[in-house]
Amino acid sequence: MEKLNTGILIFDNVEVLDFTGPYEVFSRTRLQPGVISRRTETSAPFCVFTVSLSSSTIRATGGLQVIPDYQVWAAPPIDLLVVPGGYGTRTLLDDSPTLEWICRTAANCRIAMSICTGALLYAKIGLLRNRRATTHWAALDLLSEIDSTITVEQDTRVVHDQIITSAGISAGIDMALSVVEHLHGKEVADETARYMEYRRVEDD
Amino acid sequence: MEKLNTGILIFDNVEVLDFTGPYEVFSRTRLQPGVISRRTETSAPFCVFTVSLSSSTIRATGGLQVIPDYQVWAAPPIDLLVVPGGYGTRTLLDDSPTLEWICRTAANCRIAMSICTGALLYAKIGLLRNRRATTHWAALDLLSEIDSTITVEQDTRVVHDQIITSAGISAGIDMALSVVEHLHGKEVADETARYMEYRRVEDD
Repeated sequence: MEKLNTGILIFDNVEVLDFTGPYEVFSRTRLQPGVISRRTETSAPFCVFTVSLSSSTIRATGGLQVIPDYQVWAAPPIDLLVVPGGYGTRTLLDDSPTLEWICRTAANCRIAMSICTGALLYAKIGLLRNRRATTHWAALDLLSEIDSTITVEQDTRVVHDQIITSAGISAGIDMALSVVEHLHGKEVADETARYMEYRRVEDD
Repeated sequence: MEKLNTGILIFDNVEVLDFTGPYEVFSRTRLQPGVISRRTETSAPFCVFTVSLSSSTIRATGGLQVIPDYQVWAAPPIDLLVVPGGYGTRTLLDDSPTLEWICRTAANCRIAMSICTGALLYAKIGLLRNRRATTHWAALDLLSEIDSTITVEQDTRVVHDQIITSAGISAGIDMALSVVEHLHGKEVADETARYMEYRRVEDD
């Protein structure tokens, strides 16, 4: 089975759950249900790794120290791009190498998604122009300020409009499960949620 | 304000969300509500760090690489002990140094808690003897096998009976929020959940 390369961008002050929620979902999804199947990668449809612009250890919120699997230039081709948020995104809004990398990667990947304030970065490079999108509740205004053509969804947890964006932090779990459902069906997504003992929050 | 030292044990094959869910909750709780308060540690009631028996980089499930903040012998005194689960716990069931460290730390801390199959380790050292406890749904039988005196709760997400145990993976978020509520009240816990855009799952 060909696995989809799932690259999760990490950076200093990335919000911990923003990237680890989707990491958990994508890395623990199995096409074969149950717990035994999760002890190997045999029926895993995703190959998940973290990528970073720098080679150094990343300090996420709270100080969690994470070593990126790849620097972006050395990473395998990315099929699914995951851009988490966190206060570290504010610095990245002015960081050309990061913005250029996201722009190039999003253009060449199969699905580009963000969690929380990761949406600000897509907005900054114009990828949300005239699209519907969302972000953390405290950053909804900022998303509009960055690009006033965006239809900012205030009460939707996951917004699919070419780029997939999600509300804050824990909404990334629902976002990732919605991508699993899109690619592999509701049964596989629900079974992954059951494995995680996660009660999916569905938008109306 | 005196902060409670919150030590999260990590080890190879620890389940990612088992430890990062509580990490997110404890490290992002603020007594002062809102988002601005979360940019500093001023009103943070917990000082959160990861601890490990080894000095090496930890490989969590899926391969996530985490550097422990402290080796256990060098860690600050732990007030809140967090023992996550994951398939790596099966190896630890026969690892005397880990079991002895958990036993000693649990005896000296203010609150000892586990997520998912972390409960197996408390059971193995006898700390759940004659108590109510829970674990991941796939490990309920194993919990009973390790110590048949445990009243294993099958349908409860968070069980408080001296040691606090939780159901699988994402239930650790509810467990951590319940500890925040126990220590700082429902308003602070709910506000933290709101910041995380997490819908708390309450037991009946």
